[in-house]
Amino acid sequence: MMVDDALKAAAHINASRLLESVETLARFGAREDGGVDRPALSPIDIGARRFLIDRAAALGCTVRTDACANLFFRHPGLEDLPPVMTGSHVDTQPTGGKLDGSYGVLAGFECLAALNDAGIRTRRPLEVVAWTNEEGTRFQPGAMGSSAFVDPALIERYGRAQDSDGISLDSALAAHREAFPLLQTRVVDTTAHAFIELHIEQGPLLELANVPLGVVSGIQGVRWYAVRCRGIAAHAGTTPMHARHDAMTLAVAVRAEIETLAYQLGGDDTRITFGRWTVVPNSINTIASEVTFTIDFRHPDAVVLSAFDRQLADCVSRHAVTLAALFTHAPVDFAPAVIQRVADACEALGAPSRRITSGAFHDAMYLAKHCPSAMLFVPSRGGISHNPLEATDDDHLVLGARALAHCLVYLCNEAP
Amino acid sequence: MMVDDALKAAAHINASRLLESVETLARFGAREDGGVDRPALSPIDIGARRFLIDRAAALGCTVRTDACANLFFRHPGLEDLPPVMTGSHVDTQPTGGKLDGSYGVLAGFECLAALNDAGIRTRRPLEVVAWTNEEGTRFQPGAMGSSAFVDPALIERYGRAQDSDGISLDSALAAHREAFPLLQTRVVDTTAHAFIELHIEQGPLLELANVPLGVVSGIQGVRWYAVRCRGIAAHAGTTPMHARHDAMTLAVAVRAEIETLAYQLGGDDTRITFGRWTVVPNSINTIASEVTFTIDFRHPDAVVLSAFDRQLADCVSRHAVTLAALFTHAPVDFAPAVIQRVADACEALGAPSRRITSGAFHDAMYLAKHCPSAMLFVPSRGGISHNPLEATDDDHLVLGARALAHCLVYLCNEAP
Repeated sequence: MMVDDALKAAAHINASRLLESVETLARFGAREDGGVDRPALSPIDIGARRFLIDRAAALGCTVRTDACANLFFRHPGLEDLPPVMTGSHVDTQPTGGKLDGSYGVLAGFECLAALNDAGIRTRRPLEVVAWTNEEGTRFQPGAMGSSAFVDPALIERYGRAQDSDGISLDSALAAHREAFPLLQTRVVDTTAHAFIELHIEQGPLLELANVPLGVVSGIQGVRWYAVRCRGIAAHAGTTPMHARHDAMTLAVAVRAEIETLAYQLGGDDTRITFGRWTVVPNSINTIASEVTFTIDFRHPDAVVLSAFDRQLADCVSRHAVTLAALFTHAPVDFAPAVIQRVADACEALGAPSRRITSGAFHDAMYLAKHCPSAMLFVPSRGGISHNPLEATDDDHLVLGARALAHCLVYLCNEAP
Repeated sequence: MMVDDALKAAAHINASRLLESVETLARFGAREDGGVDRPALSPIDIGARRFLIDRAAALGCTVRTDACANLFFRHPGLEDLPPVMTGSHVDTQPTGGKLDGSYGVLAGFECLAALNDAGIRTRRPLEVVAWTNEEGTRFQPGAMGSSAFVDPALIERYGRAQDSDGISLDSALAAHREAFPLLQTRVVDTTAHAFIELHIEQGPLLELANVPLGVVSGIQGVRWYAVRCRGIAAHAGTTPMHARHDAMTLAVAVRAEIETLAYQLGGDDTRITFGRWTVVPNSINTIASEVTFTIDFRHPDAVVLSAFDRQLADCVSRHAVTLAALFTHAPVDFAPAVIQRVADACEALGAPSRRITSGAFHDAMYLAKHCPSAMLFVPSRGGISHNPLEATDDDHLVLGARALAHCLVYLCNEAP
């Protein structure tokens, strides 16, 4: 029985083995403050990858890679059908924690081990993936591995990206091939049956709602802009207020107007942040001649994002300031059938869950273009993320892995 | 007749000689953009000083220096009376112009030359001074020379000040002594009869009023503060607005409140500037954890400045942000009798003038503690200052020197 196997797999999730694996992987790039600093394809990351490859081999999985050094760990299926995929990334922010990305990969590994322990064979293959350079810290942009998996043409451009030492992604990929010369290449000959990414929430909503599992229905769209306001530098003591052209006075007025229009358009789902400020000449006794600030606006509704674009253009035109678009991504709606499987898995385990929209980007944002996809979140204590203090209760980590196992086995076994 | 001599001296101001001297001095530290970069006591500044010393010697003046390398160029008087002093500084901002400071010194020199040309002997000596390090660019604080002249005890602390290369003022003063080993030391055995500083306005008021001369009645008081606002760094995409502690949101709210209270207290004379901003971590997609901004508040009324201090303390306490006092100076009221002499000189020349409060600091701020002092301003084109584009019409430069000559001779000859 499929459903029985799904429950059986969930029941074979070994809590201590899962939690130990988190601690073991965190040793690769461990920071003194308890966090992790593991740049993509660095020697530290290659050490972490060797650990994963060795463990997968011990679990009887085949291990393959691709042009962007993504790692695919496959548990064979009974039939020659497209795989069900799960996974995340193991690179971190410079001041990252132990869970962001790594938890999703290690929970996938724990599912592989649970299948073995329970003696379960699934109809479809189950493939755990570690995507390369999700954080975008060493090489820009982020999510290189997952986006290049979905659109292999991207790899040519990505290859020329350089890190802060001038090392290209191409060189880093060559070093990766040298480190693992025996790895076979995975050919993308078919789309996967489904992709599920398990991740920490990186926000406070599940904790505030006191709910241990989040069924992620999509990812917010985002707009990144830079607004440049020009003034005229002048002496703070000698220039009367009415004769000033203070770029900072202009910038805070424009910021306030943009904030208001963001709320008006977006309501409760609005996320608006003015995070980076550059002031020229940035002197106590000189009126600012130029202030540039960034906008990070996110919303799950594409109509709201477009309206924001239009009204922002009107706003900057009214104030005669300059607008530069830095980045844009449309909202992602995950596949209703896969969302439902995730929700069903939570229910089957008797675990409370709620629908949630992801505020952060994830590899699943790109996988959603390849195959039916969804995500599962566990709570982040205090909503803290990209920080050595990032943490999730052990019970939540284990419950997330159980729900993932249930969902993956169900998907692996469902009728084509 | 005293008044005749004052008019005669004014009439002997040689426009082309004055304007040429401005261009000649500007060659010491000339910038490619037409501005001047002449750090205090640098080899460039010592070159400029040598030019002044040679010119003063050619004019028959005695040249002396003191512990802070101020240079005193004295035209002897007929009687053994305290001198009338005039002058300013010849160090500049890194992106300075040709006039700030230098104009006041060179106009003083032109007065000395006019006395010679007209064959005028005054009752009191006339002393032109070049004060050391007014700008405070190479060594902090500014106005070292004039403040140490007034309070010689300051030189011990000033001596330890270091420039950005780690060179102490003491070392720079030693280099100055080596460059001019024959200069005698001026002893401050008596207070001067009066001090007048001629300077460019560095603001737009005279130009806006279309008046060529400003009779400066005092210098605004100033408060410099830094306000530090703390928040909590969090992900711009995952953190709902109601769960944020955005240091920038707090900072712009506190800034707005401070601006309002400054206007309420200070009325039209208010000068309030928030010029320097530091944002942590200053990242597009991270909510700011800390924002520090500076306040430069100036007003001619000490009561207003004190009220500002109190209400600012209440404001930061209400918002639980941190306040650090960086610098403070009380308003300076110049001596009514000297102000009147300056106004009389303008009237005697038939030149329109208006009373004005200085928004910038000047050496006269310190000299006012030593002897009856005042200042005379000429217009700054567009109010531009501390900028290679700094400029004043030739007619205004010449008129300012004529008014200075009239005023100095009148003061030199007035009854004890």
